[in-house]
Amino acid sequence: MIEVEIKAKINNVDEIKSKINNLNIKKFKEELQEDLYFQSPIVDFAKTDEALRIRKTVENNIANIFITYKGPKIDSESKTREEIEMDIEDSEKASKILKRIGFTPVRCVKKRREYYQYEECILSLDFVEGLEPYMEIETVLEDDSQYKNSQKKIFEIFKKLGIEDGFERDSYLELLENKK
Amino acid sequence: MIEVEIKAKINNVDEIKSKINNLNIKKFKEELQEDLYFQSPIVDFAKTDEALRIRKTVENNIANIFITYKGPKIDSESKTREEIEMDIEDSEKASKILKRIGFTPVRCVKKRREYYQYEECILSLDFVEGLEPYMEIETVLEDDSQYKNSQKKIFEIFKKLGIEDGFERDSYLELLENKK
Repeated sequence: MIEVEIKAKINNVDEIKSKINNLNIKKFKEELQEDLYFQSPIVDFAKTDEALRIRKTVENNIANIFITYKGPKIDSESKTREEIEMDIEDSEKASKILKRIGFTPVRCVKKRREYYQYEECILSLDFVEGLEPYMEIETVLEDDSQYKNSQKKIFEIFKKLGIEDGFERDSYLELLENKK
Repeated sequence: MIEVEIKAKINNVDEIKSKINNLNIKKFKEELQEDLYFQSPIVDFAKTDEALRIRKTVENNIANIFITYKGPKIDSESKTREEIEMDIEDSEKASKILKRIGFTPVRCVKKRREYYQYEECILSLDFVEGLEPYMEIETVLEDDSQYKNSQKKIFEIFKKLGIEDGFERDSYLELLENKK
């Protein structure tokens, strides 16, 4: 699966929420997410532009755990990349297994995420601990043949929401690491 | 969790089954297991005596998938070692993630396993494709403080079943690899 994703910093959350409302875009989910990122023993994921994380989500007191691999971004404008995400039973066990096979926990990124659906795209309004609010708009494709169209579509949605700058290709992990 | 496990080659399956029957030991499960073993990019698991595998089990047409890490054996008589096993959603995704982060699939080990319970031990009668039948007897401990007692207990069960030799510390993977 290819994830086409563009992210922008939000200067005024109330303004965005009112625009979301005017476009009749509905929030369908809100959850807490804790992402524990790991570093590889053989490559520097920051340099290869990959990511490996364990995500714990909590929605209405129900927790779910996933392991996610993200491949290098395939273009210079967006965050289009391969993503493999899998449900797992337990974050402690997953973390232990990763450590035993040579991976090192780097940092935990915590956020509250509000999900909105607009046509085939998912809008996420993210309140990351330690960062300004951001909005991510993403769509998922079977392969990378159509990703340029999807990017165009996503930029159009940002425009409808009044967002024409503040785009950011760095991940929340990178933004937090760079603040150090 | 510490897995205390001893394995022996079975020369006569019918004889063992009749002894199991005489001891009133009941079979509680039978399943097909397909274990895909991976090699690490940083160490040779055959040398470090570790293992990483994806196990798919099928019992009454219901499939379950696990990822398992096994640490080095901690004594010379048995296969006592750390084991971390976790349910996962999908073997294809797990295999893809492991490949992306540098691990290489080595070999698939397929077997039919019959499970029997005897006191706190699990007896597994294993019919591995390409090998003679084996019986594994195992028990699981919280930590390694009591493993010598458990080993003694396991050898006693083998004795009750008439098995006093043919013990094998190599894994099925190693036995198959060595046959090459």
